[in-house]
Amino acid sequence: MISIVKEFQLIESFFTGRAQSRKDIAVGIGDDCAIVQPAENKCIAISCDTLVENVHFFPDMPAKELGIKSLAVNLSDLASMGAEPAWMTLALTLPEVDESWLADFSAGLFEIAEYYGVALIGGDTTRGPRSITITINGQLPKGKGLTRSGAKNGDWIYVTGTLGDAALGLDLLRNKVEVSSEDRSYLINRHYRPTPRVLAGQSLRTIASSAIDISDGLVSDIQHVLKASNVGAVINVDNIPMSEPLTRSVSTELALSYALTGGEDYELLFTVPEAQKGMLEISLAESGVKFTQIGQVCTGGQLRLVAGNQPFEPVNLGFEHFN
Amino acid sequence: MISIVKEFQLIESFFTGRAQSRKDIAVGIGDDCAIVQPAENKCIAISCDTLVENVHFFPDMPAKELGIKSLAVNLSDLASMGAEPAWMTLALTLPEVDESWLADFSAGLFEIAEYYGVALIGGDTTRGPRSITITINGQLPKGKGLTRSGAKNGDWIYVTGTLGDAALGLDLLRNKVEVSSEDRSYLINRHYRPTPRVLAGQSLRTIASSAIDISDGLVSDIQHVLKASNVGAVINVDNIPMSEPLTRSVSTELALSYALTGGEDYELLFTVPEAQKGMLEISLAESGVKFTQIGQVCTGGQLRLVAGNQPFEPVNLGFEHFN
Repeated sequence: MISIVKEFQLIESFFTGRAQSRKDIAVGIGDDCAIVQPAENKCIAISCDTLVENVHFFPDMPAKELGIKSLAVNLSDLASMGAEPAWMTLALTLPEVDESWLADFSAGLFEIAEYYGVALIGGDTTRGPRSITITINGQLPKGKGLTRSGAKNGDWIYVTGTLGDAALGLDLLRNKVEVSSEDRSYLINRHYRPTPRVLAGQSLRTIASSAIDISDGLVSDIQHVLKASNVGAVINVDNIPMSEPLTRSVSTELALSYALTGGEDYELLFTVPEAQKGMLEISLAESGVKFTQIGQVCTGGQLRLVAGNQPFEPVNLGFEHFN
Repeated sequence: MISIVKEFQLIESFFTGRAQSRKDIAVGIGDDCAIVQPAENKCIAISCDTLVENVHFFPDMPAKELGIKSLAVNLSDLASMGAEPAWMTLALTLPEVDESWLADFSAGLFEIAEYYGVALIGGDTTRGPRSITITINGQLPKGKGLTRSGAKNGDWIYVTGTLGDAALGLDLLRNKVEVSSEDRSYLINRHYRPTPRVLAGQSLRTIASSAIDISDGLVSDIQHVLKASNVGAVINVDNIPMSEPLTRSVSTELALSYALTGGEDYELLFTVPEAQKGMLEISLAESGVKFTQIGQVCTGGQLRLVAGNQPFEPVNLGFEHFN
């Protein structure tokens, strides 16, 4: 590893001592590589996400929240495949060694890591503009795993939780809108602390025909499913689940736009064949996660939004990171 | 994944089509996670390294060389554990979408990836100051794997290749020194294109008692072995292997300082018990990698450098990334 002297000091003081142990880790932090032993008959799901200052988060984002969110967005990718979280590496680039920031960031990271049973097994700490890249590994029964490509004509389309809160939370941080102080803290919290649907994803593994997590917005992300599955979809926007803090803070039209095109909700969008609807009710009710049927898969490759029987066109909020 | 719309466009055009296929990849680039199937009775070695512009490379570093080096430094970590390269994720942060740069970078990355049989299985492309984080996965027979902690009193200390070239190459790029044009291109090439000792590392798996790759310099990196193994070492600097371009370009004293304290050689430093010396000769000779005995492990926790029978103190070149 590069810059091992200072890297080691940083990692040792803020990360090594607190890294969760797991029996499947043969060599943890502190060698050139970690060595892990996957369970028998399991395959490995791997994903990585980068958060860059001034692109994915503001410089004044509390470090603890950033620690939580950095892992949450990766856990959400595992959730959408139905994988069980296992190990992660952390590439942390910082302009300077700020001990208070590191203490808060690591506290947030380990809070969520411990909750989901993820062990930090290695990483690299470098000097430079602040950014965080986590690469996460999860386990799946061999040959299982939800993908984007399994949706079939006639399958029902669902989402977990409510949509749009995180995008309005971001606009609150940007001072673009004003809401009551109670709703403000709820909405900003939804932006800072998305709930990765890890258990719901595992419950869906044998029920759903496809799944994706909503990071860029429902309308944007569902297109990946439609393209990968070579199908179309009809979404009834009257059924889109929205929170009270969202619907009472802005007009219905704007709320729907946040819910349809706003990003970073990290809820799951998934499709379920008619024959599995009974199992879905049982499984997801057990996991305690709210889910809502919002539409149906059809042929043709197009996405149609309808309100009642009329075509619906959301206001484009232009939510896009890389611009 | 975040910013999936543009990320997808970038990855699809420069990376997806060219990613090497492997039979053990169930789901490759393009879903929320990749899914891989480790071989039976194998464990997984995982490492990640970040290269940041203006810290680890100059803005004018040719993109192809950067693509090669980004993976080479990660492969070197796998080499030092004796692991066989398998899969990688790439987190690429770029200030703008420069198609010519991307074409060159990806050409370099895939050149070395194909040579070592590494498949790109996913990643994240974000806007921001230029940096590259690769997380690499390799496979090892269950329970095997070279670590830093196995060196024993009496073991012999070896290095592969020659040391110091890469650090002098860096000083040439900084215009700190001048050498003949032939030596200049050799030395800069050694800085740009380190040779990860992947096959040598695998050969050493059942022979060496410990190993590490030399990224920060021999004197710095050997300390990690001594600390992890709770031993000391005596290094005879007269035996340090150096290339002709290095020794004829600078004074002997300076050459030794480059070799002992200069970083980024990415050669292996390893220890071998007396009983394994015969096997070492056979195995490494087969792999065609030059190796040199430079000292011996002793008790006491200290590193002693000697020239003849006299203590030796290298000139400190102050090679350090994170400063």
